Amino acid sequence: MTKIFNDPAEFADEQFAGFLSLYADRLRGVPGGAVALPDASGPQVAVVIGGGSGHYPAFCGLVGPGLASGAVVGNIFTSPSAAQVYSVAKAADQGRGVILSFGNYAGDTMNFGIAAERLRKEGIDTRIVVVTDDIASAPEEDKRRGIAGDFTVFKAMGAAAAAGLDLDGVERIGRAANAATRTLGVAFSGCTMPGAQGPLFTVPEGHLGLGLGIHGEPGIRDEALPSAQELGATLVRSLLKEAPERAGKRVGVILNGLGTTKYEELFLLWNTVASELASAGLEPVDVEVGELVTSLDMGGCSLTLMWLDEELETYWTADAYTPAYRKQKAATAGLLSPAEAADQDTAETETAPPATAAARALGRLVLDGLATMRRTLHEHEKSLGDIDAVAGDGDHGRGMVRGIDAALTAALAAAEAGDASETRAPGGAWLLHRAGGAWAEQAGGTSGVLWGAALEGAAASLTDDRDRYTAADFTAAADAFAGAITDLGRAKPGDKTLVDALVPFVDELRAAVGRGTPFARAWSGAARAAVEAATATAGLRPKLGRARPLAEKSVGTPDAGATSLALIVTGLCSLNNESHHELQHEGA
Amino acid sequence: MTKIFNDPAEFADEQFAGFLSLYADRLRGVPGGAVALPDASGPQVAVVIGGGSGHYPAFCGLVGPGLASGAVVGNIFTSPSAAQVYSVAKAADQGRGVILSFGNYAGDTMNFGIAAERLRKEGIDTRIVVVTDDIASAPEEDKRRGIAGDFTVFKAMGAAAAAGLDLDGVERIGRAANAATRTLGVAFSGCTMPGAQGPLFTVPEGHLGLGLGIHGEPGIRDEALPSAQELGATLVRSLLKEAPERAGKRVGVILNGLGTTKYEELFLLWNTVASELASAGLEPVDVEVGELVTSLDMGGCSLTLMWLDEELETYWTADAYTPAYRKQKAATAGLLSPAEAADQDTAETETAPPATAAARALGRLVLDGLATMRRTLHEHEKSLGDIDAVAGDGDHGRGMVRGIDAALTAALAAAEAGDASETRAPGGAWLLHRAGGAWAEQAGGTSGVLWGAALEGAAASLTDDRDRYTAADFTAAADAFAGAITDLGRAKPGDKTLVDALVPFVDELRAAVGRGTPFARAWSGAARAAVEAATATAGLRPKLGRARPLAEKSVGTPDAGATSLALIVTGLCSLNNESHHELQHEGA
Repeated sequence: MTKIFNDPAEFADEQFAGFLSLYADRLRGVPGGAVALPDASGPQVAVVIGGGSGHYPAFCGLVGPGLASGAVVGNIFTSPSAAQVYSVAKAADQGRGVILSFGNYAGDTMNFGIAAERLRKEGIDTRIVVVTDDIASAPEEDKRRGIAGDFTVFKAMGAAAAAGLDLDGVERIGRAANAATRTLGVAFSGCTMPGAQGPLFTVPEGHLGLGLGIHGEPGIRDEALPSAQELGATLVRSLLKEAPERAGKRVGVILNGLGTTKYEELFLLWNTVASELASAGLEPVDVEVGELVTSLDMGGCSLTLMWLDEELETYWTADAYTPAYRKQKAATAGLLSPAEAADQDTAETETAPPATAAARALGRLVLDGLATMRRTLHEHEKSLGDIDAVAGDGDHGRGMVRGIDAALTAALAAAEAGDASETRAPGGAWLLHRAGGAWAEQAGGTSGVLWGAALEGAAASLTDDRDRYTAADFTAAADAFAGAITDLGRAKPGDKTLVDALVPFVDELRAAVGRGTPFARAWSGAARAAVEAATATAGLRPKLGRARPLAEKSVGTPDAGATSLALIVTGLCSLNNESHHELQHEGA
Repeated sequence: MTKIFNDPAEFADEQFAGFLSLYADRLRGVPGGAVALPDASGPQVAVVIGGGSGHYPAFCGLVGPGLASGAVVGNIFTSPSAAQVYSVAKAADQGRGVILSFGNYAGDTMNFGIAAERLRKEGIDTRIVVVTDDIASAPEEDKRRGIAGDFTVFKAMGAAAAAGLDLDGVERIGRAANAATRTLGVAFSGCTMPGAQGPLFTVPEGHLGLGLGIHGEPGIRDEALPSAQELGATLVRSLLKEAPERAGKRVGVILNGLGTTKYEELFLLWNTVASELASAGLEPVDVEVGELVTSLDMGGCSLTLMWLDEELETYWTADAYTPAYRKQKAATAGLLSPAEAADQDTAETETAPPATAAARALGRLVLDGLATMRRTLHEHEKSLGDIDAVAGDGDHGRGMVRGIDAALTAALAAAEAGDASETRAPGGAWLLHRAGGAWAEQAGGTSGVLWGAALEGAAASLTDDRDRYTAADFTAAADAFAGAITDLGRAKPGDKTLVDALVPFVDELRAAVGRGTPFARAWSGAARAAVEAATATAGLRPKLGRARPLAEKSVGTPDAGATSLALIVTGLCSLNNESHHELQHEGA
């Protein structure tokens, strides 16, 4: 939604004034628009483009060396007047004639047409090149409207003018570029005029408008929102059906965002577009992915192909330097050709320290424990994600799964590596160290690094050189686990993080072991304390981390990190009951 | 809303793959991110930036000569893992040491920190420069998070590295840039994670979140949506209160869009920012207005100031060439300094043809008629706009007012110019010709050019050389008026345009005059026919022009152009009753 304005009626003029003041070093404002300062290479054919405002970079953002000589700027989505066109063209004229170029809309055709008449009457040779790239708008090529293909046509003519072609030559290139250019767009959502309460048009929720124009003009049909792959296939295949006659193999490409659709989405879509083009035997040349012809805050995108011959390719790939579009081949000319991938994975050759029999038994417990954690986290991945989504970005379940998967894999690999002979099997502290390292390094995010450091802390506390592992050793390891998290994350109890379950867990474990409670029972009691504490985080307001933004929204929902900790220590109860005796036994 | 994806869980990876394939000529993908191909100028300090995805151009769009050496790419809004950071830094290292730089978030700090330790252990001198520009996030500078000021810090370091500074030097520049940089942002609306059903956070309708972070972290307060002027003043004045000590007068500036907020809005906002900076005695240097650090499709913007000393200015203004950011001073070096404004307004020196007494009387009628039209259109400006807004862009009332104002002004000027002596007063056809020309040239849009042409057509039909003007002459003028519109606009009855009221009006006028009905009565009857026909357009579905996009929505509302025509001819009835007799009398 358009939010920044003063008087909506003055929006177009005010935004243009701001634009002009920004680029005063290279553009000159004239009544009705802007012209480029002439460059030192001598007079050239003036390529004057234009149309309504609200389509930036079109039109004024495309004025500069190698592209347009001037742009006429109308009100939002409204053709400029003939007087404006005349004024800009007069100012842009360098004595070698004028091309007026714009998308095929009734108002533009009339106003630019009237201006052309007036210019001709004054002896200025003036040609009109209308852009008609939108295949969704009409079956007859000359009745189609102009959308993002404006850019390929303007670009070709701007480069031809900069190369010194005469008026006939630049006009010829423009007509050839238009004849070689096809675009199909889709809309996900409408755009809002400055000051308006609602959008100018809407697209049904969960749908897209195939072929919808850049002011909401009708398209081919509404259809259910497809995957990116389906969308990319639709765009490419529809354009290929409308390919010009005698089309070659090389194509200039624009994957254009209309406003709200973001770069990341366009990059993702490019994957499919690229493979579809390759399947069709087409070679993309100088692909432009981004915003070139927008429609205020409209959601949607379009794909433009310009089938290139040698001449068009020269102009399509030529340098240009405008406020919104810059290409300078020389800037990358100093780059070396891709080096061979450097030696990656100078895999650590750290080896496990010698392990006692008790440490090797601990190793089996660690592997069982990690496997149990893995089951717990996979089982609860979705519910943890849902909890996190209430007031966070919803990725806690996935992040924890990624972490435990990496951790278990690393521990198993370490166990196997040392397992040639039973006596060389690594100890539990080593396996836990490897698991923690993998978790921290591969999970990403805050929870990943905290869990990784915590496991490494516990490993450092346990060591593999003991003859037995007592309840006190495990309690010390739990303290080290918790200490690593609080040292690194700096959260305190009450901040609504995993610390709110961790501290009660460790406190209860330590107290129970201190009272002489058998370890398995002490662990179970501590796990119950963790669950209670995790549940109680629902009443807290977050103070740190990802959830903090959404403090209000978060109240009433427990913290996802505290919840996953409680689930994990609860899951590990079964393990204590089954396996802990072995260590106690061996160690005792 | 994020709409283009396949599996939401794969969004970050897939978009990055697309990005890499687009820029394979200058970037190399490595596990965890991308690095620039080394340039031929020899090894330099590696500036490795990074963070979560969803902020493009940050971070991978900023890799290239003069900016970052590499970027680490995490999941959406999630810190990359330490392993990813390590991998990218290893690949980017050219033997002169590594800077790791990122915004101040817990996950990033931990993961980059772990990677730095690992790099140092391998003998790679690694420094960390954390960006803390967001003044809304904490009173203490070192606790502030990093937002768009990431860019100024990265840019300064990238330029310093390209200039050959050693690791100490680049680190020093980075710390100086961060210490000199302040940002304040506002949010208008939240962003939607790929696959999510609703936004990650919301801003109350009609409000903005002052100081809200780029993932929705809390700001200073919500406040009612201000005007652009108020917003600009708030942003500048808040930053100035937080200016660094010993701040100079020259500032690098970024006016950054967060996703949905468009270029036009930012340009408009720049007007106020520029004047506020000027009032404070600050000189903006190389202002960047556009998207540099985004947050998916979040609505909002931020203002960043970097107070420059000589050294920082050198690096801030240096060339860079990356996928998303390109500056090549040489490209504009060939431009001449702004020429003096070319002779504008080679005002037409057309003079009025001689006018008969009847034509001069017609002139008074034309001026009265235009004044009447002006009253009618000003009175109905809002209601015409409202009708147009139902299924169009809502500017019909305003466009018609702009047209009639220009037309009456031109006619009055023409009348005065010739009015030195009564016998040299211009005739009505001339005044109508001037009025039509001004309407067409200054109103813009489709209705402007049609009304202008129509008045000129009527003028050409009437001429100023007659001894009298009969009802048949006026009917012929009405035919010429209508013919100009149908010739130029090519609309047919039933297309839901002004033609639907115009044709019945002219038909009825012609028929009544043909039957011998007195002209004033014929006109009144024709006006009634126009009103009825205009009302009846409510049942039509538009086929041409601006309203066409919204065909469905339009049904039930009359066409704005037909309605304004009906209002005008109805308004002119009074004139016929009052003034027409004079002409008939004089002429008869």
